[in-house]
Amino acid sequence: VSDGDDSRPPTADWRPSRAKQDWFAEPPLRGFQQRVQTTKVCYRKESCAQRIEVVDSVPFGRMLVLDGAVQTTERDEFIYHEMLVHPALLCHPDPRQVLLIGGGDGGALRRILQHPVSTVTMVELDSQVVEVSQRYLPSVGGTAILDHRASLLIEDGVEFVKHCDLKLDAVIVDSTDPVGPAKALFAEEFYRSVHRILADDGVFVTQSGSPLLMPAELHETYHNLRQVFPVVRLYLTPVPSYPGTLWSFTFASKGRDPLGVEPGVIRQRLSDRAISPHFYTSELHFGAFALPSFVEEALKGGRPIDLLA
Amino acid sequence: VSDGDDSRPPTADWRPSRAKQDWFAEPPLRGFQQRVQTTKVCYRKESCAQRIEVVDSVPFGRMLVLDGAVQTTERDEFIYHEMLVHPALLCHPDPRQVLLIGGGDGGALRRILQHPVSTVTMVELDSQVVEVSQRYLPSVGGTAILDHRASLLIEDGVEFVKHCDLKLDAVIVDSTDPVGPAKALFAEEFYRSVHRILADDGVFVTQSGSPLLMPAELHETYHNLRQVFPVVRLYLTPVPSYPGTLWSFTFASKGRDPLGVEPGVIRQRLSDRAISPHFYTSELHFGAFALPSFVEEALKGGRPIDLLA
Repeated sequence: VSDGDDSRPPTADWRPSRAKQDWFAEPPLRGFQQRVQTTKVCYRKESCAQRIEVVDSVPFGRMLVLDGAVQTTERDEFIYHEMLVHPALLCHPDPRQVLLIGGGDGGALRRILQHPVSTVTMVELDSQVVEVSQRYLPSVGGTAILDHRASLLIEDGVEFVKHCDLKLDAVIVDSTDPVGPAKALFAEEFYRSVHRILADDGVFVTQSGSPLLMPAELHETYHNLRQVFPVVRLYLTPVPSYPGTLWSFTFASKGRDPLGVEPGVIRQRLSDRAISPHFYTSELHFGAFALPSFVEEALKGGRPIDLLA
Repeated sequence: VSDGDDSRPPTADWRPSRAKQDWFAEPPLRGFQQRVQTTKVCYRKESCAQRIEVVDSVPFGRMLVLDGAVQTTERDEFIYHEMLVHPALLCHPDPRQVLLIGGGDGGALRRILQHPVSTVTMVELDSQVVEVSQRYLPSVGGTAILDHRASLLIEDGVEFVKHCDLKLDAVIVDSTDPVGPAKALFAEEFYRSVHRILADDGVFVTQSGSPLLMPAELHETYHNLRQVFPVVRLYLTPVPSYPGTLWSFTFASKGRDPLGVEPGVIRQRLSDRAISPHFYTSELHFGAFALPSFVEEALKGGRPIDLLA
């Protein structure tokens, strides 16, 4: 949170403020910057892993900010979390054993638990993200963390997967961006570990950053997944609180294809599982995977996707 | 174009500058603001209708700015223009007579001329927008304006349509937003005139602003079209240089439905017309009309769509 003339992220000597004219902005990327007006700072502390902030904003309501980057907000968390979880879990007929890496705010866990899962193991690096989210953003995760099917481990996701001997129907990564502490969650080595613990008909999905502002990172993520999995599918969705709005997710599997499912089957599964999403629909399931022509071409040619080139 | 600490639009006493640290920003809406770094101001003048500026930016290359609002940019003009023109014209088997209102930069005209049209009448209020675009942004419109099938009238679009006795296969509105001079292009009265001049199997499409930042205007546009046309369909696409990235278009007709065409027919028409879009695909044709669940609900219930509510 900064004054109107300050585009730097909050720094260590930054002070909570209640002035109505404050603006929050992530650092500019590629000469582009998104700012939101803020009204109140609710929380700010350095945890073991990162700087955690909770800020009230005019456009998005309350926001969770980690190391200066917006993670989730009251008003648009449903878009991100539904589009992270539902496409992968709805293309699986019976996802029982699920691993969630990251997702400390509880929003992904809440959507996973809407599916007929037996157990969800949530591996989050930073217990303070979980605590702060439950206290300041209770609407995001609800009471998901208390569900008897969910278990929370405070642990490094990469290490967990390396030594894991579960066989999983779905692995979902809800992490910060592939810069800093989460970088290893986008590496080929990590994806090889995921491949090992994933059932033959299992599904994997990860948030994969901004296609506008981090195209090199997205290219690397896609490329790394292609080294390991035969089916890799990028999809896009708008998340207004994230810089540049347009956001990417990448799906991968040993064979299961989200575009290989009939629309009627998706609708039936939504109905059987009694899920009524606020954003996701069976039409959007296919719409989100419909990529712009030049993105398709770039993926086919193994070239980076760059909307601003 | 303004200093980093200035969120106001350029004002009359604003001066061209070559400083690398300049930032351009449209005025904030709903506590949200998008800024882009600029390197050079190429042109600035008040025309009869508006303030015209041409500015070089880091993320989007050269930008055309009218009354402080980005209209088009070198790098992402293809997204906006293809998604304005192709869905409507590809759901028509034989669009011969086309009326384009606005579109002075030439980008929409260039895409319309890729279809088997006989005549395109382009009615633009401001001749200076045409001249400035040809001079400073030649890649947007190319030589479309010189095509023998195109004729340019410098005239008010609302007045033209009121007195027009053509029968048109397609009417396309590529205007500024429904605030200020273009407001009448979003009114029920204008849509009644369009209905009168549109052939029974004709198609209409208009840009309809930001669903995030101008939801009330979008609601009014949609409502006004619903008063006049039996088929009205909203669709969304990302246009990164526009504030909030996510943008809306609204299609209307007396019966023809862009979702009533088979994907194979769309592909065949693209092939027959030898169009190879850079953004639009037959999958995106359907994907763009796949609306978020809460947007569908709002439209059905006649309620405003608000992604930030």
